[in-house]
Amino acid sequence: MEEVKVTPEALMRFCTVCFEKLGLSVPDAQVTAENLVFANLRGVDSHGVIRLKVYVDRLRAGGFKPKAKPRVIAESESTALLDAGHGVGPVTGVAAMNLAIAKAQAAGSGWVSVRNSNHFGAAAFYALRAVSRGMIGLAATNAGPTMAPAGGREARLGNNAFAVAIPTGQPPPLVLDMAAGAVAWGKIFVAQQQKKKIPATWALDKNGLPTDDPDAAAQGGFIQPLGGYKGYGLSLLLDVLTGVLSGGGFATGVRTLYQDLGNPSQVAHACGALRVDAFMPYSDFCRRMEEMTDLMHSCPTSGRERIYVPGEIEHQTEQKRKVEGIPINETLCAELTKLAAELAVTAPF
Amino acid sequence: MEEVKVTPEALMRFCTVCFEKLGLSVPDAQVTAENLVFANLRGVDSHGVIRLKVYVDRLRAGGFKPKAKPRVIAESESTALLDAGHGVGPVTGVAAMNLAIAKAQAAGSGWVSVRNSNHFGAAAFYALRAVSRGMIGLAATNAGPTMAPAGGREARLGNNAFAVAIPTGQPPPLVLDMAAGAVAWGKIFVAQQQKKKIPATWALDKNGLPTDDPDAAAQGGFIQPLGGYKGYGLSLLLDVLTGVLSGGGFATGVRTLYQDLGNPSQVAHACGALRVDAFMPYSDFCRRMEEMTDLMHSCPTSGRERIYVPGEIEHQTEQKRKVEGIPINETLCAELTKLAAELAVTAPF
Repeated sequence: MEEVKVTPEALMRFCTVCFEKLGLSVPDAQVTAENLVFANLRGVDSHGVIRLKVYVDRLRAGGFKPKAKPRVIAESESTALLDAGHGVGPVTGVAAMNLAIAKAQAAGSGWVSVRNSNHFGAAAFYALRAVSRGMIGLAATNAGPTMAPAGGREARLGNNAFAVAIPTGQPPPLVLDMAAGAVAWGKIFVAQQQKKKIPATWALDKNGLPTDDPDAAAQGGFIQPLGGYKGYGLSLLLDVLTGVLSGGGFATGVRTLYQDLGNPSQVAHACGALRVDAFMPYSDFCRRMEEMTDLMHSCPTSGRERIYVPGEIEHQTEQKRKVEGIPINETLCAELTKLAAELAVTAPF
Repeated sequence: MEEVKVTPEALMRFCTVCFEKLGLSVPDAQVTAENLVFANLRGVDSHGVIRLKVYVDRLRAGGFKPKAKPRVIAESESTALLDAGHGVGPVTGVAAMNLAIAKAQAAGSGWVSVRNSNHFGAAAFYALRAVSRGMIGLAATNAGPTMAPAGGREARLGNNAFAVAIPTGQPPPLVLDMAAGAVAWGKIFVAQQQKKKIPATWALDKNGLPTDDPDAAAQGGFIQPLGGYKGYGLSLLLDVLTGVLSGGGFATGVRTLYQDLGNPSQVAHACGALRVDAFMPYSDFCRRMEEMTDLMHSCPTSGRERIYVPGEIEHQTEQKRKVEGIPINETLCAELTKLAAELAVTAPF
């Protein structure tokens, strides 16, 4: 079997039915499926249906609670604290983002911190929900410990991530979606397969020393924080705003997605929204964003074809994959076909 | 003349009197002086009294308006837009932060964007004002264009910066104060003087290509964004939240501190505050922050003596310099002595 291409609609139906089989309500199954397919559409395949199996495994093992409903624990005019009850990440993330948007609608800005959640996939999925409401959106999450603080040699922080989405009037919106690590593990695995060296700023070996050998990184090593102490600081900050402030898990108190499937992973999030029209008419803001984008696009380059703004490449990939379908490689295809059989669901391959 | 040490009080008095001579009110002169001395105390000498002369020059030339008062242009329950009237940065920054704190006191969180301001020095100075009120504080600023977007070879973005300060109950608070560039120019100048190579991730030459030659960087080159496209995205994001959202200058519309002294520099800021007790009792939060700090401190190291959390080294320097005084090098001493004579003020050297 070679790489196949699947329409987003077929992939969405498949994931939705899988999640329904595991006990999620129809809307909860849909939003969780939508989050995975969103990532694939935008070319962020590391957060797409490659995660379907582990989501299913955690639902079967009890680490994800399929019926959990996020509960408001505390709130003020512009803030709220949610307890996700160990529900599925995207269900929680959307609830938190919607609440942040509602707070911002009423008070100008909204900030919601969330505890007892789980892996919520691509952060841009949530941040973007603010954009269609004329708001700047932010979504952040912590993650199981895989990174050492600058100078350390033990995993004490997650490769914590955030996304900010900014309206521009016409697509694409500006979307910065990044983690505090120098690079994603995926790039190191690719270098391993290709037997290539990696830049010495990407990873540490098991002793906490920079290495250009992807094998040394993969064997008990760590991702380096982005730019050393700055990325360490960013990761710590994201953990405070999510885990510490929400009363949830933080640092070594969070489990990674693949660890201990039967127990809650103690992931925490934060979502924020800021109403553009609290500062200026929406159309003025969009005009200014267009000017900013033009300034970046028109910058002379140092060899490459053109300059992009954050979120632009993902938007282009989305347009392409909506037409051409989402590529699913042989290994993933086999995994999902097996999963479909186990759940007595028809696979779209 | 060799390096001298000056007490913070003497340096504070000196700067205050200089600013009064240039037309600032006593409280405005004090807060501007306090901002510079704050940076020196914390060892961030690049933002300390080394800036006094250019502040004075801009006041004399008309680029800083000494009598300007920040004006509220728009507000909602949790947000505000300020016009600084081209006043001195620290006067504006403190007004913006105080307003963000007041909004957060009433509504849980506060966000204030500011236009028509100027260089505001160390961002931590503002963010820390929230900490004593039991809040998390954020201060961000844009700056004159000195950085190219990833892949570019023309300055289109500032080395935009932000600080977040987080209460911990007892000193030091956690303070992350960072710019979106890989490194400060100062480190490149030091390498030039020492005739040493620099890491290839620090700077670009005038053609936008990575260089390990500090001379090539200094001669028409650029600071690289932190980690490439991530730092570019961060810098752009900070410019949107400050310059674009406030209706102020952004990207190439901002002047650097040393450019065109007689005209407003069109710098923009943003300040935010988030009430910890909207989420949990303050003492619980502090206990959790202590646990987080302990987890970082206790991490085994890869050779260095110990792990620090952000803001800790600056706090230690502050304790030391409060006792031992602030070191002022020969060149700076001469410059300030000359300035003192021009303004008919007594220099503390």
